[in-house]
Amino acid sequence: MIRIGICGYGNLGRGVERAVRMNSDMELAGVFSRRDPETIRTVYDETQVYSVDVLPEMKDSIDVLILCGGSATDLGVQSPQYAADFNIVDSFDNHSVIPEHIAAVGAAAEAGGHMAVVSAGWDPGLFSVNRLYAESVLPEGSTYTFWGRGVSQGHSDAVRRIEGVADAIQYTIPVEEALERVREGCREEMTARQQHRRQCFVVAEEGADLDRIRHDIVTMPAYFEPYDTEVNFITMEEMDRDHRNMPHGGSVIRSGVTGEGTSQVYEFSLKLGSNPEFTSSVLVAYARACFRMAAAGETGARSVFEIAPYLLSPRSLEELHEHTL
Amino acid sequence: MIRIGICGYGNLGRGVERAVRMNSDMELAGVFSRRDPETIRTVYDETQVYSVDVLPEMKDSIDVLILCGGSATDLGVQSPQYAADFNIVDSFDNHSVIPEHIAAVGAAAEAGGHMAVVSAGWDPGLFSVNRLYAESVLPEGSTYTFWGRGVSQGHSDAVRRIEGVADAIQYTIPVEEALERVREGCREEMTARQQHRRQCFVVAEEGADLDRIRHDIVTMPAYFEPYDTEVNFITMEEMDRDHRNMPHGGSVIRSGVTGEGTSQVYEFSLKLGSNPEFTSSVLVAYARACFRMAAAGETGARSVFEIAPYLLSPRSLEELHEHTL
Repeated sequence: MIRIGICGYGNLGRGVERAVRMNSDMELAGVFSRRDPETIRTVYDETQVYSVDVLPEMKDSIDVLILCGGSATDLGVQSPQYAADFNIVDSFDNHSVIPEHIAAVGAAAEAGGHMAVVSAGWDPGLFSVNRLYAESVLPEGSTYTFWGRGVSQGHSDAVRRIEGVADAIQYTIPVEEALERVREGCREEMTARQQHRRQCFVVAEEGADLDRIRHDIVTMPAYFEPYDTEVNFITMEEMDRDHRNMPHGGSVIRSGVTGEGTSQVYEFSLKLGSNPEFTSSVLVAYARACFRMAAAGETGARSVFEIAPYLLSPRSLEELHEHTL
Repeated sequence: MIRIGICGYGNLGRGVERAVRMNSDMELAGVFSRRDPETIRTVYDETQVYSVDVLPEMKDSIDVLILCGGSATDLGVQSPQYAADFNIVDSFDNHSVIPEHIAAVGAAAEAGGHMAVVSAGWDPGLFSVNRLYAESVLPEGSTYTFWGRGVSQGHSDAVRRIEGVADAIQYTIPVEEALERVREGCREEMTARQQHRRQCFVVAEEGADLDRIRHDIVTMPAYFEPYDTEVNFITMEEMDRDHRNMPHGGSVIRSGVTGEGTSQVYEFSLKLGSNPEFTSSVLVAYARACFRMAAAGETGARSVFEIAPYLLSPRSLEELHEHTL
């Protein structure tokens, strides 16, 4: 059994708690949180909750520690910190500083003799792997990434910060026509506006100026100005009833050419009922790979690009060759 | 430069000849055929054509030999034979005996100190890799493979063997309704008939009994009886005009569940203008991986499951982490 520790207990941590149950070669060593363990209600009653402070004493009871904090402030610090003492997996998604993150985590993991898998999930993660396969097998062509329909946390937060907004949620939506054009072999460059549109649901404070809020949203540079944005005002009851799920997904499409202009279209798509539950499931599969690489004596940090696919599966290579190849 | 040899010169070999041009880190060492080199017309005038008999003398001028013969009779013999003296890549697709093939090629490659990548292409190949990723990240769910719209060589041949048939081509077509149901999260078992239909275009010999031919096709066990089959009689001119391209493609879809019944749909799709040109492009990318593993001192046979994605890309791992992750 692979003993999994969960560090950080929000939506992602809860997803990992559930995902571990679905993998018969794994068991949960415990949830570790910065909050008072007494205040935490887990998905399953038998899940043990500890303070992160006891982690150093638990080194021998955890095979892989899955870091379920956020990329904005947690993982940049936690991943190198814990990689010194544990095999870890994280979902670090701050694309612009991933190389620095890999270097920092790798140095800590190597010094501690541990294995770290960084930036696992779906983007970065499975989307990245598919961009790589697609561009490797179709060197000539254009790659498009479409996100959604799904909630963007960053854009939702940006709307919530506007004066007079009590609550808000933002959906990123691929422009259906662009998606269809790429699927039919289009290889032209597209603007942000041509690829995605944005849809906001806003609960306004009583007496707030709705026209001013709408104007503040659609003219916000970088976040909304480059897109066609739809703003809908709703009540808090509607927000609670219709917008608390976290669906997401999207498509990576490479429209390539071989030979004398032969069109070849490669597409990878996800349609996720719950973004955090799916991301957790990916983290858990990469935890298996992490465990196996560590068991084979490897140390350091690896991205999803460096991990052979069979390491993710609970089945043996022989079984996979017989039934899945 | 990675020096590529092409062994066998049909549609696949011609595709490799073209694909090598699209990869700036590769060059063509030559085409090797069992036919008289004088009779062979290559895609590019400067391509050198040799008899397969000279291959033993060319060991030092070829880094990876891509075997472009068929699985029915060629590769089972050629792959172990050439793996003793060369790093090789093949597209062996006889699913039922892949484990035996891997064992035979692996033994020869290890004895000769070479590296072999077997069963590369799209199915087996990229479809297999996606089945593996999908089942690893979504342990609960159902996986469906839809093929087409595309030509099945085996089914086309079966029709051609019927008395009174001058020429024939068979397209395998996914049932659109089944595809949509799976994309919407259906996880039920489906029969062959529910997933695919078959479409035949037949040129009959003069005076042949068309009703009898149609009957012979649609009642043919295993090949057509389990499916809804459409039979169209056409002229040889129509055959030459409309049916000489080799489009193909399909989808691997895993409809999975996480948490409390949350639907998560994973889809990988290809829409190929030319099946052999795409397969060739995949073989060439895996030739790069083969070359790198051999350069690292590895020997033996590897399936696509055992090859880390970054080994396929011409870009460095650092570049990939910066731009593709």
